[in-house]
Amino acid sequence: MVVIMKPKTSEKDVQKMISYVKDMGLDVMINKGVDCTVLGLLGDTSRIDPDTLMLNVHVDRVMRIAEPFKKASRKFHPDDTVVKVGNVEIGKEGNFTVIAGPCSVESEAQIIEVAEDVKKSGAKLLRGGAYKPRTSPYSFQGLELEGIALLKEAKEKTGLPIVTEIMSPNLVETFVDNVDIIQVGARNMQNFDLLKELGKTTKPILLKRGLSSTIEEWLMSAEYILAGGNPNVILCERGIRTFETYTRNTLDLSAIPAVKRLSHLPVVVDPSHSAGMSWMVEPLSMAAMAVGADGLIIEVHNCPEKALCDGAQSLNPKQFDSLMKKMKGIGANIEKKI
Amino acid sequence: MVVIMKPKTSEKDVQKMISYVKDMGLDVMINKGVDCTVLGLLGDTSRIDPDTLMLNVHVDRVMRIAEPFKKASRKFHPDDTVVKVGNVEIGKEGNFTVIAGPCSVESEAQIIEVAEDVKKSGAKLLRGGAYKPRTSPYSFQGLELEGIALLKEAKEKTGLPIVTEIMSPNLVETFVDNVDIIQVGARNMQNFDLLKELGKTTKPILLKRGLSSTIEEWLMSAEYILAGGNPNVILCERGIRTFETYTRNTLDLSAIPAVKRLSHLPVVVDPSHSAGMSWMVEPLSMAAMAVGADGLIIEVHNCPEKALCDGAQSLNPKQFDSLMKKMKGIGANIEKKI
Amino acid sequence: MVVIMKPKTSEKDVQKMISYVKDMGLDVMINKGVDCTVLGLLGDTSRIDPDTLMLNVHVDRVMRIAEPFKKASRKFHPDDTVVKVGNVEIGKEGNFTVIAGPCSVESEAQIIEVAEDVKKSGAKLLRGGAYKPRTSPYSFQGLELEGIALLKEAKEKTGLPIVTEIMSPNLVETFVDNVDIIQVGARNMQNFDLLKELGKTTKPILLKRGLSSTIEEWLMSAEYILAGGNPNVILCERGIRTFETYTRNTLDLSAIPAVKRLSHLPVVVDPSHSAGMSWMVEPLSMAAMAVGADGLIIEVHNCPEKALCDGAQSLNPKQFDSLMKKMKGIGANIEKKI
Amino acid sequence: MVVIMKPKTSEKDVQKMISYVKDMGLDVMINKGVDCTVLGLLGDTSRIDPDTLMLNVHVDRVMRIAEPFKKASRKFHPDDTVVKVGNVEIGKEGNFTVIAGPCSVESEAQIIEVAEDVKKSGAKLLRGGAYKPRTSPYSFQGLELEGIALLKEAKEKTGLPIVTEIMSPNLVETFVDNVDIIQVGARNMQNFDLLKELGKTTKPILLKRGLSSTIEEWLMSAEYILAGGNPNVILCERGIRTFETYTRNTLDLSAIPAVKRLSHLPVVVDPSHSAGMSWMVEPLSMAAMAVGADGLIIEVHNCPEKALCDGAQSLNPKQFDSLMKKMKGIGANIEKKI
Repeated sequence: MVVIMKPKTSEKDVQKMISYVKDMGLDVMINKGVDCTVLGLLGDTSRIDPDTLMLNVHVDRVMRIAEPFKKASRKFHPDDTVVKVGNVEIGKEGNFTVIAGPCSVESEAQIIEVAEDVKKSGAKLLRGGAYKPRTSPYSFQGLELEGIALLKEAKEKTGLPIVTEIMSPNLVETFVDNVDIIQVGARNMQNFDLLKELGKTTKPILLKRGLSSTIEEWLMSAEYILAGGNPNVILCERGIRTFETYTRNTLDLSAIPAVKRLSHLPVVVDPSHSAGMSWMVEPLSMAAMAVGADGLIIEVHNCPEKALCDGAQSLNPKQFDSLMKKMKGIGANIEKKI
Repeated sequence: MVVIMKPKTSEKDVQKMISYVKDMGLDVMINKGVDCTVLGLLGDTSRIDPDTLMLNVHVDRVMRIAEPFKKASRKFHPDDTVVKVGNVEIGKEGNFTVIAGPCSVESEAQIIEVAEDVKKSGAKLLRGGAYKPRTSPYSFQGLELEGIALLKEAKEKTGLPIVTEIMSPNLVETFVDNVDIIQVGARNMQNFDLLKELGKTTKPILLKRGLSSTIEEWLMSAEYILAGGNPNVILCERGIRTFETYTRNTLDLSAIPAVKRLSHLPVVVDPSHSAGMSWMVEPLSMAAMAVGADGLIIEVHNCPEKALCDGAQSLNPKQFDSLMKKMKGIGANIEKKI
Repeated sequence: MVVIMKPKTSEKDVQKMISYVKDMGLDVMINKGVDCTVLGLLGDTSRIDPDTLMLNVHVDRVMRIAEPFKKASRKFHPDDTVVKVGNVEIGKEGNFTVIAGPCSVESEAQIIEVAEDVKKSGAKLLRGGAYKPRTSPYSFQGLELEGIALLKEAKEKTGLPIVTEIMSPNLVETFVDNVDIIQVGARNMQNFDLLKELGKTTKPILLKRGLSSTIEEWLMSAEYILAGGNPNVILCERGIRTFETYTRNTLDLSAIPAVKRLSHLPVVVDPSHSAGMSWMVEPLSMAAMAVGADGLIIEVHNCPEKALCDGAQSLNPKQFDSLMKKMKGIGANIEKKI
Repeated sequence: MVVIMKPKTSEKDVQKMISYVKDMGLDVMINKGVDCTVLGLLGDTSRIDPDTLMLNVHVDRVMRIAEPFKKASRKFHPDDTVVKVGNVEIGKEGNFTVIAGPCSVESEAQIIEVAEDVKKSGAKLLRGGAYKPRTSPYSFQGLELEGIALLKEAKEKTGLPIVTEIMSPNLVETFVDNVDIIQVGARNMQNFDLLKELGKTTKPILLKRGLSSTIEEWLMSAEYILAGGNPNVILCERGIRTFETYTRNTLDLSAIPAVKRLSHLPVVVDPSHSAGMSWMVEPLSMAAMAVGADGLIIEVHNCPEKALCDGAQSLNPKQFDSLMKKMKGIGANIEKKI
């Protein structure tokens, strides 16, 4: 951590600041510049709040040097984390894992049919929403527990492990008992109470990036889960809010190589929600693979025209199958196996 | 709702779309343009998801005309809502309500001293954080239940009603029993499970705007609470995320007249968190009053140099007193009474 | 164009508005809804300013239905535009055109060496900055006319056509006489006087997207050039400003399929400036190809360690060669020939 | 400037970096931390490009400590700059200068009538657009030279100095000869060629903030003009682009106290363009005064219903007069004289 003192701060006031910092158990290096003095704080600064140092009226700015995340950082954990779900290994070098399924679970027939279809095309896990975060209180909120029961049926029939979204800390136990990967949605990325509860389990967590979160904030949310004792975090880029209005959100594919460099956690891409238009899923999926993601989570619906929600962004099974074939082609070229 | 068909859609396909919409119980007006046909959907469109209509391959775009919020809208509720807390009336014409207190409750001495100080200067309610949303799992997370107990002591001593933040649906009952206004923080603005629980109570809710939320999304979150049966919602503008890095966030003062026009709910401003610097609190508070807010929520600390968190943005009691005097001056000029 | 009247507007006031619109030579369809009346304006609305209609106090909102760009739109020009530069055809189906070269032209030796290197690896055009837009007046501003002379020398030696950036309408003639593609930088995307001058030429223009421009604004800037009579516009996505601070900008790869659908113009990607880090150029280039771009413009420097500017984002010739080989591999798979 | 070396960089590589920096004429302080070594660069770092240092593979990050603007900075110029135009002193303590007039100059009758009206209400300068930056090539582009001639007539009749926008470096001489304050619009804030030309004059320049510019970038653009030798720069906040769609832009009033602290230059606010709605001009103007601006630039139109452009955001003379009266009331309270 670096503390920049204001220009013309007296020697006495600089010394006071130094004593204050040393009292926190840190060492201090003093850099006397032309305009101002800069203090280098040496030691474990991860628990020091820069705002507290800003209270000293002689402090101009405080800059953090070390990343505030330790457990999520590749610096202290150089090897890739591989999250195992059944015999699927997400994040393993050379693997490209595709999770597919409908936005919402709607009926037994629907979820089983989709599960069978996506399995045939090469998907390794089944997704489906049982609890739905909706901007409007008047929109369909999901089948809830019944939706989870239907997902389990589909798992029994197909063997595909299931992924579904949690919205409340009250449901952590239910989810741990019934699903294979618990998804945390973009709007709950900083629902810290929920993250703490999930940190107490060892269930794999798919942590979506918040709509306007930085990569650092995203990794800090992963850090909440890791710090609680659960090492099984999969990151998921799903589009950020920008000024563009043509697409619903803007898929940030450059976040993938950034996250792979900063962290050892696997990262997958959701090409369906970000654009909000089914015809964009194919090019974005191809790009996600080429940019280095560890997998995809794609919406597939057996009858998009009647979907209760979000149909506009879903592929039908035939489109999904065609996409999978194309991706296998590219994958062969860059050593990624679907 | 307006549905724009793609150019060159056949008459037959337009008719199919019209039947589809009529099956939903809506009337349709047909506008044949030069390039394309536009359908005007007449009736209660609030439950129709534009994305569902987009599934029809002949649909180019769907535009909502009616606001998606009904209970929060001034259109159907022209009179200002006044939220009563003890004998304080927030949102009443001519009133300007100041809520003040420390960022975090730290000790009995601290909270009582601050409470007495801010009361003397004219604050009508006491704020103080017991549960703190922190980006880092390693930062101080608040005194929790003990913090609430200390706030109640301060209320007993001073008579000031208390405002504090909730983070989990599990704690709604505790908060209803012990605090006077329940604050929902920016990060939980779309924690829909929490909003639903709060909608079941009648306790006043201070709903902060999300960091990158639009005004419509903010009002939709208010709608969740109102739709649940709780009419006592106070909106709070606390700064939005922009590209500016000099200030922590950018206080959106133009949101105040916008919200006052769109909605009947009272709206207050938090000038402390947005800027993150105590010297900015005064000009932003003056501007908030001048722009038409119903009040302020300000951080005041009796000894900022030792604050456990967020001290950089807190005023000390003397600065707060000076600010209150200046605001009374302006207030006299524009018929706002503190 | 759709005009939404305010709820409770009297029949008389609706009729007045209708007369006003008819006086502009448009037809009007009337949609009487439950809450309000909606007018559909039929005819050529491209010259009507929505703000003018908003002046009527009974108007609630005005929404544009037709795209405001005509010449750039694929609706009226379904076939892909192919821009020819020498024997290079940018935008032709199956082609993937790579433009490469240093950020700034620095010396004869430098530019010729780089030109020869990138040609060997498969680049079809040479880029190099002679006039540099710099945030600080104290930074290196480019070799200017001398830089252009050096680019021409490199062209003579290698046969590669040259691409360089213009910053002032005063220099249009010079650029037309000396370079093969004139680049308009992100900061000048809405320098309308410059765009008008370029519209009077027939020289190919590489139009970069503004840092926080929407796709519509970008296409409207292309429209300025097209409307002036110059059909040779190549769009270039180079990253947008987001809240992310880890990368300099965020490359918006989802803009590529969006632009290809909305417009017939070719679109290339700049993977060097957006990230600002050379190690990101490879994954972003691969993703740009996979997502459907017509080519790339990449910075390559023969000795990045000594570059006068922007070296951090440049590849060296060896890295560039390795990237080109990998892209040829993927290209073979998706029918894109470098 | 602070250079953070990567963890585990060898002593030899650290020494190499130190030599490299010393060769640039700088001194270096070495801070050996637990994880990494941090170098403090001492001396004039304003000409050093952080990106150049990033080229060294052992460098993790580079952080600038000194502000990159020197002439615009209050650090080296503590007293407020006062820009004199005739006998108007903009930026003088206690002054609050109102500039008013129509968006576009349309006719002799229009501009003279508006000029007389706004003068009566207390405006000190007349604004009016002759050259208009328009997103669409098909929109009205202004009366150009004729517009300037009409502004001069209005000045003769009323004595009000005139303010109008320039868009091209070709017109600097014309503007210097004919207008009193030259306005640089938001879209040209980083039109560096234009800024350089304006820096060669001594004419007062009203420099609007770019739509998504940071305060630092805005001050760097002012620096271009100041560095050229022209000290007469007035900054103008006119709203930034945010995710909000209800208002056209979001007026950033918190930028006012920030800029007043960072710089000695006067700063005025444009409350008309940012919101784009005339009913918002009054509350935003009041807030701008309360937050500490040195003045306002407001659109006033004598017959908004027929305006050729931007009428929706203009006040009529009666509304303007009423606003001026209210502002005089508040001004009396906070020692700002209109």
